[in-house]
Amino acid sequence: MIDCAAMSPGDADPNHIDPAFPLHKGGKIEVRPTVRIRDREGLALAYTPGVARVSSAIAANPELAREYTWKANTVLIVTDGTAVLGLGDIGPEGALPVMEGKALLFKEFGGVDAVPICLDTKDVDEIVDTVIRIAPAYGGVNLEDISAPRCFEIERRLDEALDIPVFHDDQHGTAVVVLAALINAAKLTGREISDLRAVVSGAGAAGVAVTDILLDAGIGDIAVADSKGIISADRTDLNDTKVALLERTNRANLSGTIDDALVGADVFIGVSAGTIHDDTVARMAPGCFIFALANPDPEIHPEVARQHAAVVATGRSDFPNQINNVLAFPGIFRGALDVGAPTITSGMKLAAAHAIADVVGDELSADYVIPSVFDRRVSAEVPRAVAEAARQDGVARR
Amino acid sequence: MIDCAAMSPGDADPNHIDPAFPLHKGGKIEVRPTVRIRDREGLALAYTPGVARVSSAIAANPELAREYTWKANTVLIVTDGTAVLGLGDIGPEGALPVMEGKALLFKEFGGVDAVPICLDTKDVDEIVDTVIRIAPAYGGVNLEDISAPRCFEIERRLDEALDIPVFHDDQHGTAVVVLAALINAAKLTGREISDLRAVVSGAGAAGVAVTDILLDAGIGDIAVADSKGIISADRTDLNDTKVALLERTNRANLSGTIDDALVGADVFIGVSAGTIHDDTVARMAPGCFIFALANPDPEIHPEVARQHAAVVATGRSDFPNQINNVLAFPGIFRGALDVGAPTITSGMKLAAAHAIADVVGDELSADYVIPSVFDRRVSAEVPRAVAEAARQDGVARR
Repeated sequence: MIDCAAMSPGDADPNHIDPAFPLHKGGKIEVRPTVRIRDREGLALAYTPGVARVSSAIAANPELAREYTWKANTVLIVTDGTAVLGLGDIGPEGALPVMEGKALLFKEFGGVDAVPICLDTKDVDEIVDTVIRIAPAYGGVNLEDISAPRCFEIERRLDEALDIPVFHDDQHGTAVVVLAALINAAKLTGREISDLRAVVSGAGAAGVAVTDILLDAGIGDIAVADSKGIISADRTDLNDTKVALLERTNRANLSGTIDDALVGADVFIGVSAGTIHDDTVARMAPGCFIFALANPDPEIHPEVARQHAAVVATGRSDFPNQINNVLAFPGIFRGALDVGAPTITSGMKLAAAHAIADVVGDELSADYVIPSVFDRRVSAEVPRAVAEAARQDGVARR
Repeated sequence: MIDCAAMSPGDADPNHIDPAFPLHKGGKIEVRPTVRIRDREGLALAYTPGVARVSSAIAANPELAREYTWKANTVLIVTDGTAVLGLGDIGPEGALPVMEGKALLFKEFGGVDAVPICLDTKDVDEIVDTVIRIAPAYGGVNLEDISAPRCFEIERRLDEALDIPVFHDDQHGTAVVVLAALINAAKLTGREISDLRAVVSGAGAAGVAVTDILLDAGIGDIAVADSKGIISADRTDLNDTKVALLERTNRANLSGTIDDALVGADVFIGVSAGTIHDDTVARMAPGCFIFALANPDPEIHPEVARQHAAVVATGRSDFPNQINNVLAFPGIFRGALDVGAPTITSGMKLAAAHAIADVVGDELSADYVIPSVFDRRVSAEVPRAVAEAARQDGVARR
């Protein structure tokens, strides 16, 4: 097993070779047996004729697949390669290293087995049909790096068609961790979420999901801006997703540019490219929260943000308060799989956010509103909270 | 890890619980990381931002996926659950334990990573489309337990559409091991394959493939019988597969029942259900070979077969000379993947059969024409021979 610690750029790059490449040689995951076969008797149990008795039992009652196969612990990671990290549409093969990384993190932080599926199609109907057809051997579907607005329809249709959880991580993973950070930022500054006015920059996968979870969490008001400005009633260029977004946002009826929206705002959440001027930042409310999550270049540089904001978060690991989906998706699936939930409810996402926030506990400070991904309490607490929420929402099957 | 040796029926069943069930609890395979992430620096190489550099390189040259992902070592095991072992159409969930067993054997005997895909469709077009769409992250496709004649069209269309090997194990795995047994039976008795007349009982997946490989190996003559009798020119009920089969078989122009075909025949190969009368067996040529492979009930009981035949083989592990696909498929894929072959040629299958036969060497006897699946020389020799044949056939890409 390659140990990443031996390959960090600082000490393992004498020939200026990017250490990411030797690390990725041959891939980052493998499929291994969990039973050992040493003789004919073992073979006769794990394979024919023994396996036929297990197969017959499952054929008579397909629910037994959750007990006698890997199904109950295994998810598909499905992408079409259209919105990979900040790289855009790089195709299914290009997306594969990211999906392998995701599978690695699923196992490492959630004990979940995950299989990458990189699709050779971008057609929504074909994607939906394909995932439905390959779903029987799997206990969940994690959608990944699929461009908006296609991702919304794909998630909705799969969630309706399948009796296993379907979760688009770029939407909900980000949203859960943003809410966790906001919960702790409010706690740190003695404020209520219902008193806050937020502005979201970006109406793609993450922007829509962040908006939804903040509404579910009771945010005071929230406005969303895309590259054309605030999503408002005077816009004539809105697609269906944005029309629906407008129906549940911008109660203050703001219009104009994002700079207009940010005057006096309590929270900025950036989940797109683009830059916010320093002057605009200065016009936000005193003690505001700035979560500038664009990678690698935050919409507002943390040094600038710090001059005005009470709490600053980014998507980068080299600044404090990294909003990292790894805090959310392994534990959310772990919890959902543990109780056999057929879907992931709003309550389960909110519970995950509160569990992540609670791990910080007494260590809470402006530079520590979010726990480290290596804090093992996250792996323990998120599944527990998600499973409990599933029970409360009536979707736990065991 | 569960050890099968501790769970054999003889010593671990005090309560008469079938030990296959506890063995299968939670499934037989898992997905594991091959790199270890211990800190932020490791995460920054295996995931963002390091992974983005690898993804970008692959997006620019998708062939690099063979170098920097698991693709070159990983195959899909695809079934629609329509012809699972002797159980018939038991559906995708029922098929999963068999596919997990296959994945386990792929890793154990070939070092190949394998992912089960149990399809929720039986439509040929949908199966072909689905596999093509999910293929980019995989280096090969092992088709499994798909009923005839659909399996022939599915294999042909996938092999044409994809630049990775496609191999229907129920056809070619069986055929390769049958040929290996026949090579050694002929050697043992001092005969040439070109002097032998064979009768195959069964015109399904295995029957067709056995016939093809024996023709490729230069069998003297071969007749195939289905449940209606010998496939002959006077039949009016033949489907396309069987019409094509007739064009390359039965040069002696036999017609009638399988009993008629077996009079004076040198080789019987049974790959279907059904029983051959003792009298019919007695009318086969002196020193004949009987491979009665139906499971669990061979077409001719080995005790009866032994009274007439020089060599007897079955599909069962409790008689000598078990024709077991495990001898073939892991090594065939290992060899094909090692050289990046885009297809598996007839030459590669013949080479696998000869390699399996050669492992027996000086130990050759009537009760030992086929090596044990636990003979580690098989895992070494089959890949080597298959890779060499790929080079000779001009399909090796490295």
